[in-house]
Amino acid sequence: MKTTEYIELIDKKLDEYMPENIMPEDIFKAMKYTVTLPGKRLRPIMCMEACRIFGGNYEDAIPTACAIEMLHAQTLIHDDLPCMDNDDYRRGKPTNHKVFGEANAVLAGDALLSFAPQIILKNSKNLGCEKLVKIMEEYTQYAGAYGVIAGQVADIEAEKNWRENIFGLEPSKLLDFIHTHKTADLFKLSLRTGAIIAGASEQELEMITEFAQKLGVAFQISDDILDEISTFEEMGKTLGKDKDAGKLTYVTLYGLDEAKNKLSCILKDCYDMINGLGEKSDALVEIIKGMEKRVGL
Amino acid sequence: MKTTEYIELIDKKLDEYMPENIMPEDIFKAMKYTVTLPGKRLRPIMCMEACRIFGGNYEDAIPTACAIEMLHAQTLIHDDLPCMDNDDYRRGKPTNHKVFGEANAVLAGDALLSFAPQIILKNSKNLGCEKLVKIMEEYTQYAGAYGVIAGQVADIEAEKNWRENIFGLEPSKLLDFIHTHKTADLFKLSLRTGAIIAGASEQELEMITEFAQKLGVAFQISDDILDEISTFEEMGKTLGKDKDAGKLTYVTLYGLDEAKNKLSCILKDCYDMINGLGEKSDALVEIIKGMEKRVGL
Repeated sequence: MKTTEYIELIDKKLDEYMPENIMPEDIFKAMKYTVTLPGKRLRPIMCMEACRIFGGNYEDAIPTACAIEMLHAQTLIHDDLPCMDNDDYRRGKPTNHKVFGEANAVLAGDALLSFAPQIILKNSKNLGCEKLVKIMEEYTQYAGAYGVIAGQVADIEAEKNWRENIFGLEPSKLLDFIHTHKTADLFKLSLRTGAIIAGASEQELEMITEFAQKLGVAFQISDDILDEISTFEEMGKTLGKDKDAGKLTYVTLYGLDEAKNKLSCILKDCYDMINGLGEKSDALVEIIKGMEKRVGL
Repeated sequence: MKTTEYIELIDKKLDEYMPENIMPEDIFKAMKYTVTLPGKRLRPIMCMEACRIFGGNYEDAIPTACAIEMLHAQTLIHDDLPCMDNDDYRRGKPTNHKVFGEANAVLAGDALLSFAPQIILKNSKNLGCEKLVKIMEEYTQYAGAYGVIAGQVADIEAEKNWRENIFGLEPSKLLDFIHTHKTADLFKLSLRTGAIIAGASEQELEMITEFAQKLGVAFQISDDILDEISTFEEMGKTLGKDKDAGKLTYVTLYGLDEAKNKLSCILKDCYDMINGLGEKSDALVEIIKGMEKRVGL
């Protein structure tokens, strides 16, 4: 399936899964607002595609795929809050707290953290309870303080003091830590749960995890590059903030050219790995090509 | 088992479950800080006691009981934020954001929402995957927008405009909605999961849910009364704020005497119900007596 077809399916299901007219409406509206903003849907595509390439039916992965997009939206809502990155725009629209107020944005994010796994539990009963428990284990691991939240905490702390070896890490190691947790961990959650739904072996899970790690780091490097070279119109969010703040990014640390070189090398590795993963995957190739294109590689 | 014995056990296990020296340490420290503040541990006691009175081994309920205390701590951390109730003290100590900063407090709360179910998944494997899935269903239902978050949203909205029938509800109905979700829902989660671990029947689950509803409303009424009559020294948090803000509470709506009468009636119902729940329960009786005592009934 092509990424455009996946996106259409995901958008339809996200709309279906997110209720609106339940009291208190404000909170359900706030949840739905950010979840259904148009996006690339990389994570749910990866989840369904991993399920397919390891011999499963991608339709079995739809609830989990959509739940991971909800979790991703949760991280965006809270990352944009005034006490964090204080961003006014996301995907070209006002951020959640700008529309619904700060208290509702905090609570909408909280609610998504329970709503997302609930969507899996309600709509994936056909997988059987053993797989459901495994998916819950993956979800709670990567969504929490061992996963994406570790990345966000380190990212915030690294905004100012990264030259002082915070956490006892040199800047390059700290940057790896941030990229691994802030971005690669949700890619791992997506690809691993898709593979688990398909019944992949431990060895296959290891391979897909390594692939997710590389792809996640590549994506974050491309994001760091875009913060430097792109525009609000192209990205739908305020850019250049990292640079202005002297924040630790791949570009701040290595310069623009070296960042592009590094990205190119990692993406080459990713292409090489795809063939070893299972079935041929046009969608994963498209995702990598998309990353090359957005930074002009 | 007496409540004091339960509390000792719970405090020991909470300390064990909450790691400290994991990077990024700030977030694990922030999580542990609020979870391990001394408290009455009502919810975990209810969970273990429900397991016991329906014929289970209370030790099987320890991870779930502690996870619900972590979830409760999460709601406290986020409710105390400047954009919500803006409280500086909780259980006699500075609130989470006062110690760790607002960003870390938001993220510590987020992290607890995944950490708590992870504790259950990791430490309750002996229950088997069917019961684990049931517990996850209960957890995600009561922790989210259908549960405790609905109560918090309504509570915030009711602070100013409750006379205008927000959500289309008269003040008394709105107050029921807030009490049901803000307080009774976590009591339901505690008692129901304890009963599920013991293998209780559907009928027993219905009974315990009804009991949890009554006890939750009683607890919230006693809290409303205490906000009026107690002191910072007794409660460890700033009081009288509800009254000063003209907020919708049982006391604002019905007056202090009527609130006490109502509480007394509900607690009488609770005593009557306890005998029908299963084994004799000293701990549940102690909890009710505690509510009577704190408001001088």
